[in-house]
Amino acid sequence: MNIDGKPYRSIWLAADGATVEAIDQTLLPHRFATVQLRSFRDAEHAIKTMIVRGAPLIGATAAYGVALAMNADAGDYMLQEAHQCLLSARPTAVNLRWALDEMMATLKPLPTVQRREAAYVRAAEICDDDVRLNRAIGEHGLQIIRELLRKKKQPSHINIMTHCNAGWLATVDWGTALAPIYLAHDASLPVHVWVSETRPRNQGASLTAWELAQHGIPHTVIVDNAAGHLMRKGEVDMVIVGSDRTAANGDVCNKIGTYLKALAANDNSVPFYVALPSSTIDWSLSDGATIPIEERSGDEVSQIAGRNKHHGVSRVALTPKGSAVANPAFDVTPARLVTGLITERGVCAASSQGLQSLFAGKINERTAAA
Amino acid sequence: MNIDGKPYRSIWLAADGATVEAIDQTLLPHRFATVQLRSFRDAEHAIKTMIVRGAPLIGATAAYGVALAMNADAGDYMLQEAHQCLLSARPTAVNLRWALDEMMATLKPLPTVQRREAAYVRAAEICDDDVRLNRAIGEHGLQIIRELLRKKKQPSHINIMTHCNAGWLATVDWGTALAPIYLAHDASLPVHVWVSETRPRNQGASLTAWELAQHGIPHTVIVDNAAGHLMRKGEVDMVIVGSDRTAANGDVCNKIGTYLKALAANDNSVPFYVALPSSTIDWSLSDGATIPIEERSGDEVSQIAGRNKHHGVSRVALTPKGSAVANPAFDVTPARLVTGLITERGVCAASSQGLQSLFAGKINERTAAA
Repeated sequence: MNIDGKPYRSIWLAADGATVEAIDQTLLPHRFATVQLRSFRDAEHAIKTMIVRGAPLIGATAAYGVALAMNADAGDYMLQEAHQCLLSARPTAVNLRWALDEMMATLKPLPTVQRREAAYVRAAEICDDDVRLNRAIGEHGLQIIRELLRKKKQPSHINIMTHCNAGWLATVDWGTALAPIYLAHDASLPVHVWVSETRPRNQGASLTAWELAQHGIPHTVIVDNAAGHLMRKGEVDMVIVGSDRTAANGDVCNKIGTYLKALAANDNSVPFYVALPSSTIDWSLSDGATIPIEERSGDEVSQIAGRNKHHGVSRVALTPKGSAVANPAFDVTPARLVTGLITERGVCAASSQGLQSLFAGKINERTAAA
Repeated sequence: MNIDGKPYRSIWLAADGATVEAIDQTLLPHRFATVQLRSFRDAEHAIKTMIVRGAPLIGATAAYGVALAMNADAGDYMLQEAHQCLLSARPTAVNLRWALDEMMATLKPLPTVQRREAAYVRAAEICDDDVRLNRAIGEHGLQIIRELLRKKKQPSHINIMTHCNAGWLATVDWGTALAPIYLAHDASLPVHVWVSETRPRNQGASLTAWELAQHGIPHTVIVDNAAGHLMRKGEVDMVIVGSDRTAANGDVCNKIGTYLKALAANDNSVPFYVALPSSTIDWSLSDGATIPIEERSGDEVSQIAGRNKHHGVSRVALTPKGSAVANPAFDVTPARLVTGLITERGVCAASSQGLQSLFAGKINERTAAA
């Protein structure tokens, strides 16, 4: 998508054909800068410190991380080492495992001399596939927006609430939850987005607001606490969020606070959709109860960074010295609260039957491989 | 309650018998300082800028505001002017009107020469009554905590979640939601408090965490988004919050985000209690739908203050320049989601019948007066 009118992806191969470049998402919205990843350790560090984040982008970065490892040494030991280290960089998003397994399946059978090139080719394919899938998610979601707009009594505009950032910055391009919104805006449909700030890391206020602003889409930032009130007041026509891991029954693990929005949507009959590429589906999980929930550093809650009056970025402490802090990073929204899953193959119910109706072949293929 | 071991109220009459002193709550938890209120305009400013906040303390401050007005000029015009200006300082909390009407009823019939003294006496009574009522709320809430602890299979400790600050800083002393917790702790019951930070003004992280720390009560600060996840994981035994205005049917208007916690409690069968003195009940409202919801400045969302590395307090900007911001300050939790109301007269169902069972006389008295 566009930054200051210039098209970007969130990650790309540098002109030297070896180095990988990515947007440093820890600096947004205050400063735009890119980082260069030269080794799989750089990729691991970028994932761990959330220079890159968002399930699809984590997968893409991990794929390029394996390519960077092969660029240094295409031996079996390095392949195994890169796979293992990158896999443990973040525990919740299942795309990480998916992308690493894809790379392993491509590279393992090859002679070492062919691995470097094959790795860059496969990583680029994973990125291109992500863009294609997200665009397809956008098309399917666009139909839902059109339908809601058609049904609205006073169709001045449609108010869509989202949580965290499942925009193009969370993917290689287009985004998952925001892809339908970009397409709706491009089709001149009147959309307005409620951006919930998404404490503690404020990906909503920092990233979603920023990328919507860059694309000229009307939006309003709110605190997470305001979501229920706005729904009760009838100011939300639909909710679209992303997913870090989706169980085979349609339970959705996503950024902490998603579950609260789903409860409020359910209580107010607001349609609640989850947009996801099928790579976020964990077919091995019958439900969301056992998805590991990453517990991140309490510093993310007790401190926050923002623009200071000198136009630099400062970090300030929010909590009393000595108060304990807990920081679970994700929660699980039960399938019963989800109106529908928007996937690259279409929209389905958040249920085993729903997912099977779209992905029967894929499930069998995965089961056979397991 | 105690600050560094020394007992304090949140507001008190200074040694000169005229000036009113209060804790400046905009500086906590980073710095402890008090302000001196010398005129009703000072009191109005303190309420508007949230130097004092919390429904009961707003009422107490408004009462002293009228006394400060009478200290300057005890004439009818000043009495009317002070009543009117103070009433419009904050729109949602009904205690403000209650306290001002109490002052007016006391002072209006008196000759001007008697008003100054009568005003200070009545304001002090309102403060003392608040302390007494909150202590009674604490005793009734304590029984609920004892009962939950008795029923708990592994009664190591009881986890109570609260929202915003309905502690002693929100009242004259003891607090409403926190009064049962202080009494439980003083009775050596093992309580641990989940403190949700309460964006945008962070009264949970700033004030509740601070006052619990000062009293030595174990607590953990979380982002508001984490409430649902903790309830799903069985880590919350009960929720207690305060109320800024309670409708006659038990609908509760409280700090933005309360409704989301109530939904999560309901979805996970966690008891959800609201602690309130009867002065927060608006008997004129049949339900919560028409309670005016204060829309505060977007700066509260787009900027935040905290301790900088030089141990001072700095303000930083969080959102992209140019992104719109909305900031509704309260929401309404429907009575159906409330397990019970803890009042100074005991615990009742959140319903017309429940409230009538405790306050029948009071309702008739108000209706007759209207």
